[in-house]
Amino acid sequence: MKTGRVTIPTDKNFVEGTKKIAKLWGADAVRDCDGTELPDNASELAPKVYKTYFLARGNNAWAYAHSETLQNVALISEFVLADKDVVAIDPLKGYFDEQLTLNEDENSLSRWQVIDRTSGKEVAWEYDKTTKRVIVKNAEYMHEYTVNFFAKVLWDATQIYNYTANNWTVDKDRDIDPVFPEAADLMESDLEKWLIENPQINVIRFTTFFYHFFLIHADKTKNMRQKYFDWFGYAMTASPTMFDIFEKTYGYKITIEDIVDGGYYANSFRTPTKTTLDYMNCVEKFVAQTVRRFTDIVHKHGRDAMMFWGDNWIGGEPYGDYFKDMGLDAVVGSVNSGLTMRMIAELPNLKYREARLHPYFFPDTMPEGRDEFVTEYRQNLWREERRALLRKCVDRIGFGGYLSIADKFPKFLAQVQKICDEFREIYDTLDGQKPYCSLKVAILNAWGKKRSWMTHMVCQDAPYQKILSSQGVLECLVGLPVDVDFISFDDVLNGALDSYDVVLHYGERDNAFVGAKYWENQEVVAKVRAFIYGGGGFIGMGQPSAVDKGGRFFQLAAALGVDEELSYSMFAPKYNYEKAKTHFILEDVTQDIDYGNALSNVYALEGTQILDIAEDKTLGLGTNAGHVRMAANTYGKGRCFYMTGIRYNYETARLLYRAMLWTAGKESELKKAFSSNVATECHYYPEKKKYAVANNTLEKQTTQFYDIDGNERTLTLQPLEIVWIGEL
Amino acid sequence: MKTGRVTIPTDKNFVEGTKKIAKLWGADAVRDCDGTELPDNASELAPKVYKTYFLARGNNAWAYAHSETLQNVALISEFVLADKDVVAIDPLKGYFDEQLTLNEDENSLSRWQVIDRTSGKEVAWEYDKTTKRVIVKNAEYMHEYTVNFFAKVLWDATQIYNYTANNWTVDKDRDIDPVFPEAADLMESDLEKWLIENPQINVIRFTTFFYHFFLIHADKTKNMRQKYFDWFGYAMTASPTMFDIFEKTYGYKITIEDIVDGGYYANSFRTPTKTTLDYMNCVEKFVAQTVRRFTDIVHKHGRDAMMFWGDNWIGGEPYGDYFKDMGLDAVVGSVNSGLTMRMIAELPNLKYREARLHPYFFPDTMPEGRDEFVTEYRQNLWREERRALLRKCVDRIGFGGYLSIADKFPKFLAQVQKICDEFREIYDTLDGQKPYCSLKVAILNAWGKKRSWMTHMVCQDAPYQKILSSQGVLECLVGLPVDVDFISFDDVLNGALDSYDVVLHYGERDNAFVGAKYWENQEVVAKVRAFIYGGGGFIGMGQPSAVDKGGRFFQLAAALGVDEELSYSMFAPKYNYEKAKTHFILEDVTQDIDYGNALSNVYALEGTQILDIAEDKTLGLGTNAGHVRMAANTYGKGRCFYMTGIRYNYETARLLYRAMLWTAGKESELKKAFSSNVATECHYYPEKKKYAVANNTLEKQTTQFYDIDGNERTLTLQPLEIVWIGEL
Repeated sequence: MKTGRVTIPTDKNFVEGTKKIAKLWGADAVRDCDGTELPDNASELAPKVYKTYFLARGNNAWAYAHSETLQNVALISEFVLADKDVVAIDPLKGYFDEQLTLNEDENSLSRWQVIDRTSGKEVAWEYDKTTKRVIVKNAEYMHEYTVNFFAKVLWDATQIYNYTANNWTVDKDRDIDPVFPEAADLMESDLEKWLIENPQINVIRFTTFFYHFFLIHADKTKNMRQKYFDWFGYAMTASPTMFDIFEKTYGYKITIEDIVDGGYYANSFRTPTKTTLDYMNCVEKFVAQTVRRFTDIVHKHGRDAMMFWGDNWIGGEPYGDYFKDMGLDAVVGSVNSGLTMRMIAELPNLKYREARLHPYFFPDTMPEGRDEFVTEYRQNLWREERRALLRKCVDRIGFGGYLSIADKFPKFLAQVQKICDEFREIYDTLDGQKPYCSLKVAILNAWGKKRSWMTHMVCQDAPYQKILSSQGVLECLVGLPVDVDFISFDDVLNGALDSYDVVLHYGERDNAFVGAKYWENQEVVAKVRAFIYGGGGFIGMGQPSAVDKGGRFFQLAAALGVDEELSYSMFAPKYNYEKAKTHFILEDVTQDIDYGNALSNVYALEGTQILDIAEDKTLGLGTNAGHVRMAANTYGKGRCFYMTGIRYNYETARLLYRAMLWTAGKESELKKAFSSNVATECHYYPEKKKYAVANNTLEKQTTQFYDIDGNERTLTLQPLEIVWIGEL
Repeated sequence: MKTGRVTIPTDKNFVEGTKKIAKLWGADAVRDCDGTELPDNASELAPKVYKTYFLARGNNAWAYAHSETLQNVALISEFVLADKDVVAIDPLKGYFDEQLTLNEDENSLSRWQVIDRTSGKEVAWEYDKTTKRVIVKNAEYMHEYTVNFFAKVLWDATQIYNYTANNWTVDKDRDIDPVFPEAADLMESDLEKWLIENPQINVIRFTTFFYHFFLIHADKTKNMRQKYFDWFGYAMTASPTMFDIFEKTYGYKITIEDIVDGGYYANSFRTPTKTTLDYMNCVEKFVAQTVRRFTDIVHKHGRDAMMFWGDNWIGGEPYGDYFKDMGLDAVVGSVNSGLTMRMIAELPNLKYREARLHPYFFPDTMPEGRDEFVTEYRQNLWREERRALLRKCVDRIGFGGYLSIADKFPKFLAQVQKICDEFREIYDTLDGQKPYCSLKVAILNAWGKKRSWMTHMVCQDAPYQKILSSQGVLECLVGLPVDVDFISFDDVLNGALDSYDVVLHYGERDNAFVGAKYWENQEVVAKVRAFIYGGGGFIGMGQPSAVDKGGRFFQLAAALGVDEELSYSMFAPKYNYEKAKTHFILEDVTQDIDYGNALSNVYALEGTQILDIAEDKTLGLGTNAGHVRMAANTYGKGRCFYMTGIRYNYETARLLYRAMLWTAGKESELKKAFSSNVATECHYYPEKKKYAVANNTLEKQTTQFYDIDGNERTLTLQPLEIVWIGEL
């Protein structure tokens, strides 16, 4: 088999082992990671040598001496109930005092706010520097008050995390902020110096740039557990100086409230305001411009600049407008699903993209003696990752941690060898070409392109019960033969829908992925209806187009054929509750459909075809009783499909594919470049006239394979096998 | 045993049978009903003779000759999508043409409206009398339009119902409207004449007055099924003339939109607007004044005026401000639960209140040969009705239908004999006195007193899945030793909370029983918090105080100790998910608690005691996973209890009682006038120093009985037995 496209960790205590495993897996790159050091002769181990480089947390001596350049975070205090006239609030109560200290500078204090959360109004306050309390005089009895404030960050958040998770003892790294020119200049000179001192490193693995995702620890009484964890949060970019930059650029005032947002911190699930979008834009632009100074230096020294997509990545939005300006060569990111693989594979404007696979070679993730278990874990992940790779391949894969630990797992080593070979085979066969897509699909939400492949995420693709029903959509899509774009409501207003066969819109009433305020906009509503009415396909899940307005909850109710009972229309009996006997969409369903935490009280309008309906626990099924789970409806020349939610498995992925074809009126396209057995999937690469039929299971499978012209053939696939079929 | 307080139906073909059953049950009143006629010698059968009297539908000859006096209904058309410039809307599409015809009078047409439901704006239109279509020129592409209009009612809604349900053939009764003075005058002269012609009738059973509850049938293609059924709806009171009266009285314009409300028809679940409340007030006042003309005549003739609480009862709100002015002697209403029994028993300003029990003696409700089944059905209802009677007794009970049918059910006859005797025993023992109550409880919602004992009802107490979790509260309460008042948010602003030990507030975010708009009012929020903080008890169920504002969803989150995850705060991990081992509230729980259709995604704040939490179907239970079902929390000197919902059974009723005592800080009151076994309940009548201990089951029960001083004794109760205990 060929070699290359694989990165492994190494350590100066494991040089011979590194050579052995590099040979076994065909690795062409070695890297360090937290807790390991590259051997001096690292470049003899592999042609590429990566080293982690910290821009913001690299120079503690300087950081400790220049606390005026520390990074800040915008925070909200606890809600404090006024049970007397004078209320004294400790802004930092509940926070971890080794991570944070109040920023009492004038440009900070002048921006603090006290908000009466019961009246919604900002009120007058005083700050007592001695007690470090914010004092509200004339508080209103039984109102709740909060303080919005800036704190300086005393300890890097990732380091705290590793400290608490791995019981490390460390010198506390302090992050400096490049909004201070002297800090940016220092980063530049430090990097320059470092590049000269480390000639053997040819890939600078920035981990990452400046601003950490929103990771705040609770106080010691809470065992230092995490108080906030938002992989997308911008609160740690905020500082009085960044606010100055914003105000100069955008010409209007920004407040800490714009960041802390009543305690919701304007997170991804909040429909973004103009100020939120402007602020992100401001930070992104600043980050891109500043990063460019460092990538230019890296390039001047003939090395590659790689971004690790995590830790201090905030402001470096890979699908944002300024990403291309950063001058990066590569991105590496952690992958633990098909979705996260695709998230990386689609990144634009790079020379290469690398997926860091799990498990991390750590004692907790590779427990001694559990070779079988870890091997199986890897194999199962591979089944999902491979679905995504067969549609859009990353350029490299790799691992992290202590290679010496992995070395104690012989079955695992052998499994990864197979994975590396198969990865290279896929990469070479695809050869950068686009596989055949039967449909062009748009995903519509308030974020659009900026959150491509990142809808409904809090901590990458970890599951959260409230959104479990929405999280499966993308995981289904990554292995399906459809072109996917992410569009916003503004894109809709600009005519974007014309380019698509099918629009997908899914989420919960209260979040940005539905975007209630946009569904109050008559132009948005009319444009989406017109798209469907004119023949477009529309798939809604959860509470699509939901906002309580004009006698509808789902503004597209008439198109979708369903609405949700909010208790306002119980007096109008619901008679349509019988399930259709058969439907194109359901033809491959053999088991219970996994809807996630399914929504209740959705009912079908007259004339809608119900594809699944759940009995009410108490009332059973009948007039006024039953919860519609899936429905199909026609609207003008178009078609809609509704589903309460979806979790990924073979059958739901197929169901979604069928639903997309049906809504697009392209049922006849199903049996083209297609494998009938849901445990298998077919991908077609038209430039090479080559098909891949993949068995996604650990069992042998038989399937009907259909080529692009619909010619049929029976195939038998070994467990996990990919059968490559050339021109017939 | 004594006799009296019981009404039975009779029929001129069943005189001897009537005598026999009257004797068996001790009946002192006979009545007619739909499909039967009183015998000429009815007054020989019983001292009281009731006869159904229709005010509005009594005189077809006149009604057909004076169609200008027919009743109207305010309606909304279907939503019509504009797919071209000119849209023609048939207002009556989907309605039943034998029930309705368009009111094309000038005062009607001038009030019609066309609303663009997509823009929310009223638009210009024309009416084409030839085609009976409303024409919108210059419609906006893909907007939805509706017509608000008046229709005249051609057929009495109850009669249609009986016609369709019982396959009757009838002359179609037409309802005339007393807003036309000549119609009211006719009703008066007809009644006067009828009273003279029917001297043997001493109770005029008005069935009912003028305006039917909102009952509209669908067109014939839909098999004449019901399109709307709202037992509380005011749409059939609306007419151009009633609008004239309103505008003269209140000094501002009312529109059809105020009635049809985007298709929700301002039903009880909609938080009422000022216009809705003013309009109800207007109708109630008009109905009361007009009814008074007829009750005065009835009294002049020495008879009793009784209102049947159903059919055309709208505007005759028994808990409203004008009810006392009607001059009624009695109300009779249908009862099929403890709640509906209490609803009637509490009615103020009457000489007597009568409960019409189920089953109705009809072939469908008493199917031949099913004596055992029907008897058991009656017995089970009695167990619930009796709980309510032991707290507040109605003055009479009765039945309806064909007595000859009941006569074929010997076991049923014997069962009802026992029920009648037991009813009289309860009535005589209670003797109008108030039983001991350990707590004063207020139920808080947007309706307050006007919807006393009528929260979460659509069709009396029929179950609806969306509100199943709220409907059980009152059924639990009717048998518990607590004083219950219904208060509104305006009452809260006027200081009402001071009088109560515990406030109950339950419902769903979208309806009047939560009243979101009131929770946006800082004064309401502060007053309720102050009540709890100062030592009050508060019980919230479902989505209490829910409105998305100021960083909270439940505005009382800090008091309740719980909030609901709307997806906005997933980034803030939830660590409090362990269930308390024991709690006073849970001490009688032995089986799964029936929460109804339980709400998901409620989480506990730090420090809250979780009394029950459900695992997430997929994620199990842990940080960020789990759905809190019950929680207890302290707030200042007060206490709160939260529960997602409740359905009535012995254990949930006890649980609710314990929760009320706990929140009030009166746990020590539990074992006073108390029966420990949840299958039994104890009621204490202090004036008579008498206790009733009731076995609510069909099995023998042993229990610890505690008198008012806490003295204890073991009791054994036979199935369904009430043990009466005098002074110890």
